[in-house]
Amino acid sequence: KKRYNITLLPGDGIGPEVISIAKNVLQQAGSLEGLEFSFQEMPVGGAALDLVGVPLPEETVSAAKESDAVLLGAIGGYKWDKNEKHMKPETGLLQLRAALKVFANLRPATVLPQLVDASTLKREVAEGVDLMVVRELTGGIYFGVPRGIKTNENGEEVGFNTEVYAAHEIDRIARVAFETARKRRGKLCSVDKANVLDASILWRRRVTALAAEYPDVELSHMYVDNAAMQLVRDPKQFDTIVTNNIFGDILSDEASMITGSIGMLPSASLSDSGPGLFEPIHGSAPDIAGQDKANPLATILSAAMLLKYGLGEEKAAKRIEDAVLGALNKGFRTGDIYSAGTKLVGCKEMGEEVLKSV
Amino acid sequence: KKRYNITLLPGDGIGPEVISIAKNVLQQAGSLEGLEFSFQEMPVGGAALDLVGVPLPEETVSAAKESDAVLLGAIGGYKWDKNEKHMKPETGLLQLRAALKVFANLRPATVLPQLVDASTLKREVAEGVDLMVVRELTGGIYFGVPRGIKTNENGEEVGFNTEVYAAHEIDRIARVAFETARKRRGKLCSVDKANVLDASILWRRRVTALAAEYPDVELSHMYVDNAAMQLVRDPKQFDTIVTNNIFGDILSDEASMITGSIGMLPSASLSDSGPGLFEPIHGSAPDIAGQDKANPLATILSAAMLLKYGLGEEKAAKRIEDAVLGALNKGFRTGDIYSAGTKLVGCKEMGEEVLKSV
Ligand SMILES: CC(C)[C@H](C(=O)O)[C@@H](O)C(=O)O
Ligand SMILES: CC(C)[C@H](C(=O)O)[C@@H](O)C(=O)O
Repeated sequence: KKRYNITLLPGDGIGPEVISIAKNVLQQAGSLEGLEFSFQEMPVGGAALDLVGVPLPEETVSAAKESDAVLLGAIGGYKWDKNEKHMKPETGLLQLRAALKVFANLRPATVLPQLVDASTLKREVAEGVDLMVVRELTGGIYFGVPRGIKTNENGEEVGFNTEVYAAHEIDRIARVAFETARKRRGKLCSVDKANVLDASILWRRRVTALAAEYPDVELSHMYVDNAAMQLVRDPKQFDTIVTNNIFGDILSDEASMITGSIGMLPSASLSDSGPGLFEPIHGSAPDIAGQDKANPLATILSAAMLLKYGLGEEKAAKRIEDAVLGALNKGFRTGDIYSAGTKLVGCKEMGEEVLKSV
Repeated sequence: KKRYNITLLPGDGIGPEVISIAKNVLQQAGSLEGLEFSFQEMPVGGAALDLVGVPLPEETVSAAKESDAVLLGAIGGYKWDKNEKHMKPETGLLQLRAALKVFANLRPATVLPQLVDASTLKREVAEGVDLMVVRELTGGIYFGVPRGIKTNENGEEVGFNTEVYAAHEIDRIARVAFETARKRRGKLCSVDKANVLDASILWRRRVTALAAEYPDVELSHMYVDNAAMQLVRDPKQFDTIVTNNIFGDILSDEASMITGSIGMLPSASLSDSGPGLFEPIHGSAPDIAGQDKANPLATILSAAMLLKYGLGEEKAAKRIEDAVLGALNKGFRTGDIYSAGTKLVGCKEMGEEVLKSV
């Protein structure tokens, strides 16, 4: 029997609910494929702030680093919104990404035939959308220095951040993107603002140079403002998108909303060698926390990504993906994806339905 | 008779076609309101590069500065895409914005009842959208220093830019936004990334402080990734949006595509005292340039904004707006907004139809 250590980071809001369900699904799918998991739960985000006064405790970092993969629920909530920057739940998440060196964030945005009407886009525009945003996650303006708020020579406050990419940071995320595109439909669109930003000029130059090594992948370039438009105009034109940290933050959220079912979308954050970080792309939804209303499917599908991208256990991953489709095909829907004629269920019941089909 | 000097900057691609039409409409609407215009055409962008080797000649800057308002067509084209940064048409536009100190960029995104089906969003989502993006235009990462591409101590190339806002830059754009919201539906949403960026923390702090002076305006804050989602989910929730240069670039393009008729949308860029810069938000569309296929309405409506925001000539502005609606109500459509049952016309004929109704 193969054994894996998984760190669970339930976090805040609906995080604990969806993690507890995803854990069961993961265990079930694993055991059917001869895998054994041992789980360790650790605090992060607001939960950690309340417990020990920092958003990412040392113990959480060590546990995560020593495990084979990390599954995160969600972080943040109104309660901590006014905190100073270093005491924000979000800061814990950024520190975790940095500590695990997970520079490659894969965010699929797929419109399932069962859910095409959940999109605000017209059926013919939304139908068949299946794209992947590859977002650089540990560099750029999120981490660049110098940064801060200082007082200038006129006694006036000035806020500043640094967008910065070294060649090797661009190359390694571009390689992940080319490999990803190769396994998909072979089309890669690199998004930048090379008509204005120097960092983007270097980005475009490096990505273009690497293309020679991937002759089977068709590379194109697009300015970020145009990409934001094209996602609305015709999202089906995209296969794989690669972009920097901040543009990836914006475009992947836009793309996920285009699918209409953000409660369905998982993500994987990968490093060169250490454990990956897997999490739903939705937030902590404090308004519905603890009410058994959350959609657990994004976290369940994140567990599938954990199996596939984190552990290389494709069969167990496929079991989970199929089980999710199974529950949807039987008509079960949580509130966020409910439509007339389907069966409205809570978070737990949806979890049980998936578990049955694993 | 009131006299105004207008600098016309036709620029590249479809620019000259749409400017020549907008000029006629402006003249006609003005003369009916007792205004006399004298026009001076100057080169900018690719046209200037071809003519004198720089994207923004000195003479163009002086003419623009000495006039009462500037009307721009469009800039850019494949021909100059590989140029070095300082020889790009876009650089000319950025230099012009800086020279005129037009820090406040107003970009309306409105779904006209006549054109609601042009949107890729479902009718019930698109119908009635009427929002205004107030984008900071002369600061932030577009102009921040240090910037460049350098070689680091490992001999590796590094590209970098600086996102930077001083308190007074935030305050002056926020004031324009509060005033704009006050004249609209009294709702202002400030978009930032204050959970990650120091520049955004200062931004949010200053905007919040100013709110006390505008008790009649309801202020809210939203993270940029969420804003990109909400524009797709429910664009009607927005009245006025204020944001920095790069976020405004992305979100205003996304918002314009949501209306489905980017060939219809004008923009105004205003300074504290000097002449404003008015331009359609669409690009130079080199693929249809010179073929009488362009939609001149965005430029015609930019001329209306010039009258209203640039010269304070609201009556003449209203004439143009009504004339555009008149031509649409008669069923005339250029290719980009054509639908079955309407009358397909070229750029010139559309211009003539508007002219008839002024
Ligand atoms: C919570 C926030 C810091 C985070 C980010 O901006 O990366 C989130 O928006 C995301 O996309 O995972
Ligand atoms: C052409 C480019 C430099 C410009 C910008 O990014 O500001 C354009 O996209 C715009 O929005 O007016």
